[in-house]
Amino acid sequence: MTDSRPPAPMRNEFPLLARNPGLIYLDNAATTQKPACVLDAEREFYETANANVHRASHRLAVAATGAFESARATVAHFLNATTPNEVVFTRGTTEAINLVARSWGQASLRPGDEIVLTELEHHANIVPWQFVAQATCATIRAARIARDGTLDMEHFHSLLSPRTRLVGCTLASNAIGTMPPIAEIVAAAHAHGARVLVDAAQAVAHQPVDVQALGADFCVFSGHKVYGPTGIGALWAREDILQAMPPWQGGGEMIDRVSFAGSTFAPAPARFEAGTPPIAQAVGLAAALEWLIQQDRAALLAHENALRIRLENGLKHMPGVQIVGPNTDKAPLTALRFAHAHPFDVAQFLDNHDIAVRVGQHCAQPLLQALGESSLLRVSFAAYNTEDEIDRFLAALEETLELLA
Amino acid sequence: MTDSRPPAPMRNEFPLLARNPGLIYLDNAATTQKPACVLDAEREFYETANANVHRASHRLAVAATGAFESARATVAHFLNATTPNEVVFTRGTTEAINLVARSWGQASLRPGDEIVLTELEHHANIVPWQFVAQATCATIRAARIARDGTLDMEHFHSLLSPRTRLVGCTLASNAIGTMPPIAEIVAAAHAHGARVLVDAAQAVAHQPVDVQALGADFCVFSGHKVYGPTGIGALWAREDILQAMPPWQGGGEMIDRVSFAGSTFAPAPARFEAGTPPIAQAVGLAAALEWLIQQDRAALLAHENALRIRLENGLKHMPGVQIVGPNTDKAPLTALRFAHAHPFDVAQFLDNHDIAVRVGQHCAQPLLQALGESSLLRVSFAAYNTEDEIDRFLAALEETLELLA
Repeated sequence: MTDSRPPAPMRNEFPLLARNPGLIYLDNAATTQKPACVLDAEREFYETANANVHRASHRLAVAATGAFESARATVAHFLNATTPNEVVFTRGTTEAINLVARSWGQASLRPGDEIVLTELEHHANIVPWQFVAQATCATIRAARIARDGTLDMEHFHSLLSPRTRLVGCTLASNAIGTMPPIAEIVAAAHAHGARVLVDAAQAVAHQPVDVQALGADFCVFSGHKVYGPTGIGALWAREDILQAMPPWQGGGEMIDRVSFAGSTFAPAPARFEAGTPPIAQAVGLAAALEWLIQQDRAALLAHENALRIRLENGLKHMPGVQIVGPNTDKAPLTALRFAHAHPFDVAQFLDNHDIAVRVGQHCAQPLLQALGESSLLRVSFAAYNTEDEIDRFLAALEETLELLA
Repeated sequence: MTDSRPPAPMRNEFPLLARNPGLIYLDNAATTQKPACVLDAEREFYETANANVHRASHRLAVAATGAFESARATVAHFLNATTPNEVVFTRGTTEAINLVARSWGQASLRPGDEIVLTELEHHANIVPWQFVAQATCATIRAARIARDGTLDMEHFHSLLSPRTRLVGCTLASNAIGTMPPIAEIVAAAHAHGARVLVDAAQAVAHQPVDVQALGADFCVFSGHKVYGPTGIGALWAREDILQAMPPWQGGGEMIDRVSFAGSTFAPAPARFEAGTPPIAQAVGLAAALEWLIQQDRAALLAHENALRIRLENGLKHMPGVQIVGPNTDKAPLTALRFAHAHPFDVAQFLDNHDIAVRVGQHCAQPLLQALGESSLLRVSFAAYNTEDEIDRFLAALEETLELLA
């Protein structure tokens, strides 16, 4: 196990944390804080290169286009994509999945086709498929979870058939941390001729995501969960699949020729980026990914896992607290239920201790329903968290539960 | 006419302009530069309030939600909307029009219904309607322009009929500046029972846009063209219309209940904001609008118009230059054709003088085709431009045309 002593200098790289020295921010699965280099990169873009992209008739427009396309190359490198042409900038994970569902799904799905999802999915990987299933008369099947919050792989395999056209699966549950066996899932889906969409939103800040190693067809993530800005995310899709997909949103930049008699469209990725893109945000995202690439990622992940284990060990003997979800193969987060307290009340008391956690259904109502839970308290870790924060969390939780008992 | 002397202090409010004292930025119709207060507001959000919104279980989440909803209220105030519930945050104008086309359009249009647009429209107000027309077997009719680039109102009126379900019209052409008589257009459309979408992207930085006075049903604009960040824009829609519209993108935040058996959705505007929204960008947009509200807007518009008139007067006697578009009722921009030079070459020479203009079809191919032009050079003004810049532009253009002759 890597040393997980407080990486104090890292906290100082994050202005919000530096300005709030007492804050224990354990809501990283909702959104991470941003290092100064990300905020600097966005501001530097606005102060030195701000112009609209892709219609370069002056030096600022050339600089802006260069910065934007360089950001695309950084995303491609971060994901080990074959080419930057496989990367489409979106507002985030949600828009990326909607894009795949409305473009690839609408064009590919026929009545009777099946989309296999899992009960672990975030609403973002459920509702867009419900919309396209409704439009195409396709059917959604959901792989069940076991009682411990792991995916029931027997049930998953039983759902696959020649009717399966798409398997959508998260790399890590945002609510309880479960990391399903993605290699097995991708292989099984492909054996049935199905495409695979991997939701990397929750995983990407923690473990390297290599789209070629994953072997999936689509992979999506959000900038704001990987130390980057809000308003930006990316869809990666295998180039041959992306080039064959019809456009979704229409507008400037995504066209070849427009006339009222009809229009033709640009090749991907431009075809999927209608209108002025989130230029400064792409630059900020690239800065975040570069920051992360520069870290010792194995050590970071070990640190985050060590924090989780320290927390979970500390909770084991605390009365009235139960950990929901698996013990292993999980993202660095811990979901909790309480025997004698409502998680909202617990969170409010923790907030009084300047401890930020999240409570609720975590945009995963089918999962909570499957678990028989109405609400969970989630503690989620990032690179800047420390052992000391965990110890202070444990002390505050103990005090809170005594007060609420 | 208001004094249009160089507002030097204003230039200093814009970091990019302050850092590039020699730059003459006349590409404002593509994107404006951002005042420091906008960049400060975004950074301040990230440094003091960054959290995800709408699931508030700690003080940062409360602060983030407050900042985001306060930004919505600012947009509503800026547009004189009846309530912030009429404002949906989008990535920009393009996404806002796609939203209306795919939600309202898909639900409302029947085979044989007609969508009336104008030849002045940006691709963003054409292509989304082509997509929905194709999906619903509706038909698009385009109101012609006259030779001078004004809208042929006789032709426009002739297109309206009981089949007309939507009229889409820009407040100001992004390519040649034409401002069609929007009050007449809205009244005529409503007299035929049609909805009206107003594209305010190009107008909103210059003239106050009052949605109640306009009387339109939908109004859209982008942050980055009104001194705000990239990655953010807004759809305003009349509340009763918006509440009746079905969802478009699916995901977190826009739902009421999700289960694999089916989902139900939140009321507007949440219903149309799937996923984590562009939170920091909404805050930045609000700062931009507040900055603009604090200006003497009548004086600003008079200043920008005075710059345009100074330019156009200066061009009148320059050989080989022709102004394309109307002389009056136009946004503060001037489109040019050259008798003996390609506009791309002219722009490149101007760039050598550190003058930024835009050249091309300006995402308005049908308009350029109607005008018989393949490419125009566009000079577009913002609050920070000065008379001195116009004079330097004129001198540089004269020199350029002599060189290229």
